[in-house]
Amino acid sequence: MKIFTTGIQLQTNGRNQIIDVTPHVNQILNESDLSEGQVTVFGIGSTTGITTLEFEPGLVNHDVGEMFEKIAPYGKDYRHNQTWGDDNGAAHLRSFITGTSYTCPFVAGKLLLGTWQQIVFVDFDTRARSRQVVVQVFGQ
Amino acid sequence: MKIFTTGIQLQTNGRNQIIDVTPHVNQILNESDLSEGQVTVFGIGSTTGITTLEFEPGLVNHDVGEMFEKIAPYGKDYRHNQTWGDDNGAAHLRSFITGTSYTCPFVAGKLLLGTWQQIVFVDFDTRARSRQVVVQVFGQ
Amino acid sequence: MKIFTTGIQLQTNGRNQIIDVTPHVNQILNESDLSEGQVTVFGIGSTTGITTLEFEPGLVNHDVGEMFEKIAPYGKDYRHNQTWGDDNGAAHLRSFITGTSYTCPFVAGKLLLGTWQQIVFVDFDTRARSRQVVVQVFGQ
Repeated sequence: MKIFTTGIQLQTNGRNQIIDVTPHVNQILNESDLSEGQVTVFGIGSTTGITTLEFEPGLVNHDVGEMFEKIAPYGKDYRHNQTWGDDNGAAHLRSFITGTSYTCPFVAGKLLLGTWQQIVFVDFDTRARSRQVVVQVFGQ
Repeated sequence: MKIFTTGIQLQTNGRNQIIDVTPHVNQILNESDLSEGQVTVFGIGSTTGITTLEFEPGLVNHDVGEMFEKIAPYGKDYRHNQTWGDDNGAAHLRSFITGTSYTCPFVAGKLLLGTWQQIVFVDFDTRARSRQVVVQVFGQ
Repeated sequence: MKIFTTGIQLQTNGRNQIIDVTPHVNQILNESDLSEGQVTVFGIGSTTGITTLEFEPGLVNHDVGEMFEKIAPYGKDYRHNQTWGDDNGAAHLRSFITGTSYTCPFVAGKLLLGTWQQIVFVDFDTRARSRQVVVQVFGQ
């Protein structure tokens, strides 16, 4: 059994930007000599999200954002914003319910994702950021 | 330390169908010789969900669906549906926020779930499907 | 590779009470001799939540609760409540979408959380409870 930890650097624009990190995770997995185990993908920061999604433009650029505008709209006068002179209360709430950590099993060196199921990093924040996504692989 | 990966086959009807997979997971755990570790339950497909819920008819057949009709209603004209001639945009959004992977610790060969806390697989899709749920166990 | 399982005892008041458990998790991690691996934090009970949040009063005492009042308000006549003479249907729904298990990687004996990213336990239930939160550490 072996464990190792590495990461992905992303330049992001935020405001519900959804990025497919599956190719990065596949590359990290391919470079390991592991056949069976798990990959944990972890978003550093309280305005990030990690989950799975069919990575197609309708969902990515429109539908997910529209859903979140009902749940936690940008531009609302959150207590968080009042307290800290911030404008990203919505981003914190979206992160809270999306989650920032995701674990995907692999077998025969391949992630067990469905054909139209991608691992996505979401930057919910309201400004451009440099982001680090942790990828931790363990297995045999 | 040992890791192994198996699965559960489910015939589902979709439309927010919630299935208690705890008995399946318990059986897999009992058949292993492991006493302490984790089980990861993973839903293959971008219209699935894995989480915990008290598995009782009020929540399972009514309340969860009612909540999601506010967040991501079925039958809405999602961009996803327009793009792909599909009708399951709601299913993708519900999966995004529910999550498709769940990790439960066990000790003395028993999952550490609460008495009324079950691991559930949700089929959010809009049609009957044959589904594979991955169960990966590791520990000692 | 080593795995061990311990826990945190919390006395909670419920009704969306959000508790920062990062100091407890850090202490458990410091007392282990592990440098690289994962901590899984697991909430026992179907009215709990585990996720990450910037632990500041605006979000903790106001904004998160306000968001959930839109998604799954307390005091609504849920089918769950009708069936069981209960009043905590909202708590079950909030738990369902927040999730009750969270995995955080660590390297050099430190959790890889962002500066303003804390691991929080949420008691969504409608009454005071004694809660047990599982902390399972594995790594090398």
